[in-house]
Amino acid sequence: MEDEVPFYVPWFRVRPMADPELRKDPVVERWVIVSTDRLSRTHELHAAAAVSRLESCPFCAGHEHLTLPATLEIPNERDGWRVRVVPNMFPAVRGDGEPQTWSDGWHEGTRGVGVHEVVIECPQHETSLANLPADHLADLLRAYGQRIQQARHDPRLAYPMIFKNSGADAGASLEHAHSQILILPQVPRTVQEELDGAKRYHESVGRCLFCDWWRQEQVAGERQLLDTTRFTAFLPYAGRFPFEMCILPKAHASHFEELAEEELAELGEVLRLALRKLQSGLNDPPYNYLLHTAPLAAGPLPHYHWHLEVLPRITGVAGFEWGTGYFVNPVPPEQAAEYLRGVAI
Amino acid sequence: MEDEVPFYVPWFRVRPMADPELRKDPVVERWVIVSTDRLSRTHELHAAAAVSRLESCPFCAGHEHLTLPATLEIPNERDGWRVRVVPNMFPAVRGDGEPQTWSDGWHEGTRGVGVHEVVIECPQHETSLANLPADHLADLLRAYGQRIQQARHDPRLAYPMIFKNSGADAGASLEHAHSQILILPQVPRTVQEELDGAKRYHESVGRCLFCDWWRQEQVAGERQLLDTTRFTAFLPYAGRFPFEMCILPKAHASHFEELAEEELAELGEVLRLALRKLQSGLNDPPYNYLLHTAPLAAGPLPHYHWHLEVLPRITGVAGFEWGTGYFVNPVPPEQAAEYLRGVAI
Repeated sequence: MEDEVPFYVPWFRVRPMADPELRKDPVVERWVIVSTDRLSRTHELHAAAAVSRLESCPFCAGHEHLTLPATLEIPNERDGWRVRVVPNMFPAVRGDGEPQTWSDGWHEGTRGVGVHEVVIECPQHETSLANLPADHLADLLRAYGQRIQQARHDPRLAYPMIFKNSGADAGASLEHAHSQILILPQVPRTVQEELDGAKRYHESVGRCLFCDWWRQEQVAGERQLLDTTRFTAFLPYAGRFPFEMCILPKAHASHFEELAEEELAELGEVLRLALRKLQSGLNDPPYNYLLHTAPLAAGPLPHYHWHLEVLPRITGVAGFEWGTGYFVNPVPPEQAAEYLRGVAI
Repeated sequence: MEDEVPFYVPWFRVRPMADPELRKDPVVERWVIVSTDRLSRTHELHAAAAVSRLESCPFCAGHEHLTLPATLEIPNERDGWRVRVVPNMFPAVRGDGEPQTWSDGWHEGTRGVGVHEVVIECPQHETSLANLPADHLADLLRAYGQRIQQARHDPRLAYPMIFKNSGADAGASLEHAHSQILILPQVPRTVQEELDGAKRYHESVGRCLFCDWWRQEQVAGERQLLDTTRFTAFLPYAGRFPFEMCILPKAHASHFEELAEEELAELGEVLRLALRKLQSGLNDPPYNYLLHTAPLAAGPLPHYHWHLEVLPRITGVAGFEWGTGYFVNPVPPEQAAEYLRGVAI
């Protein structure tokens, strides 16, 4: 999902659907959000906004009237806010109503109930999160956590997906640093697969897979990237994308939103370092990051461990990946980690 | 997987691996092909070739010396060949050796044994498959089938993945019309999920899911696109991409490579019509198509049904999709089908 939808058929106007729908493929467990709200108000398949010019950027301080009213602001004295969360103007899901479901054997779906917000990462027109100080990133992470905590009060919601598209090739259409929060009425497939895989490991071994994994990577060393008191970052052995990173807490924790104050501060610095390594080492590449944490309704899970995946987008995804679910990575993670360790920041 | 790998870090030179590796993620059933052979001979992360100019195109007739020797040619009188299959210069897997596997609990993998070929779709410098006549497309489909049949003799190989990247935004780096054949030592995840889902349906209902599906779509009508004596095309209810199409034979058949001569001819025309609809209706969009057929070693399967998926790439894939495995489609397939049915070709 890009920020907005690019241009191909200006003469084809999509009729608005009554509600966004989550639809299930009849063959495999794959869900698709069909939402005409993602299009502009005229429901045209329109051009991705040219990277916005400074004077018209709706995310800059002073332009708050160009967005919907904020659902959260992390305050600061100069601009009034340091991080600002607003409803997405082109939401994939909607906050009102109940999650009705339907199925006739072929057409299985559920009404697209949920929350879709934009997190404006700073008041000034900064395009790179890597250029912000660590305490600012800590505030951003705090905003993520507070929005997840808020969502836990809504019984219609199941899973908070937090992600960032940075750079046009990673799906961003506005250059002002921002990320997204999409809270879904279901636990999405990728997370459920992780939960299932981690549960199997825990049942068989009696320990958390992720706790064992980071320790194993620390012993092996060759894919290790960063290491602080409470956090560690490595490049996964089977990373899908060149220079793909995984950042996670050393102490077992299933719920990101329960991070303590001193952990937020340290994670802000680790995330900054990871993004600076990418920026300096890979010539400011487009990237996505995404947070995998426990479902909203879950209590503390002994088998699951929240983590942040950072996915540089310097290779494309094409027919082979769609056809197989496999990926091709031309850069061995061991070599990528060795290179990034040596990048001065 | 793009045709080649784009440019970000010209100063970082990847050291060649001894062998391509298929590596498994420790949490979920996700495999990644790690292959430095995908990079150019100097093992740099280099620029995607600018769309090749006519005089230097290695795929044009007369430039056969710029490719490796052909593994198959569908002959014609004027140019010597009409469709030409050659080994990929930057293969993701290698044809020699045995598929050794390893596992220490964390690092599970297998040597990347397989076949990676390029199918040059025509001798002249034509960039759009949709502009070729139906009998030419039938020859292309015949070439696919013959290469799959050949692979069935090699016990190391498990699955033939045939796919096309058309247009730079769909992963093509050369504009001369071409597709790819990648024969893997494993049945890939996406196909296995389809096999499993279709088997469950067959066990429960006693019929092929796909046979029921196309009939259901024909009755419903609203997502129907094309219909001939032997083939049908519709837009799936839960299509991931706007204007996504599924083409399949009406008669039950699990193995694409067993298509009869008259079926090839008819499928060539159906594929041409589908691609022309896209070209005319969506302003010549980038697209991928991919063939899902039965594994090489399988006998006739009562529950599986080969099909061709056509995926226009007019929306991007970003953090949300990587994080969830869900997709967002802003164009309801019913509206997309209605629009495409009306496109004159």
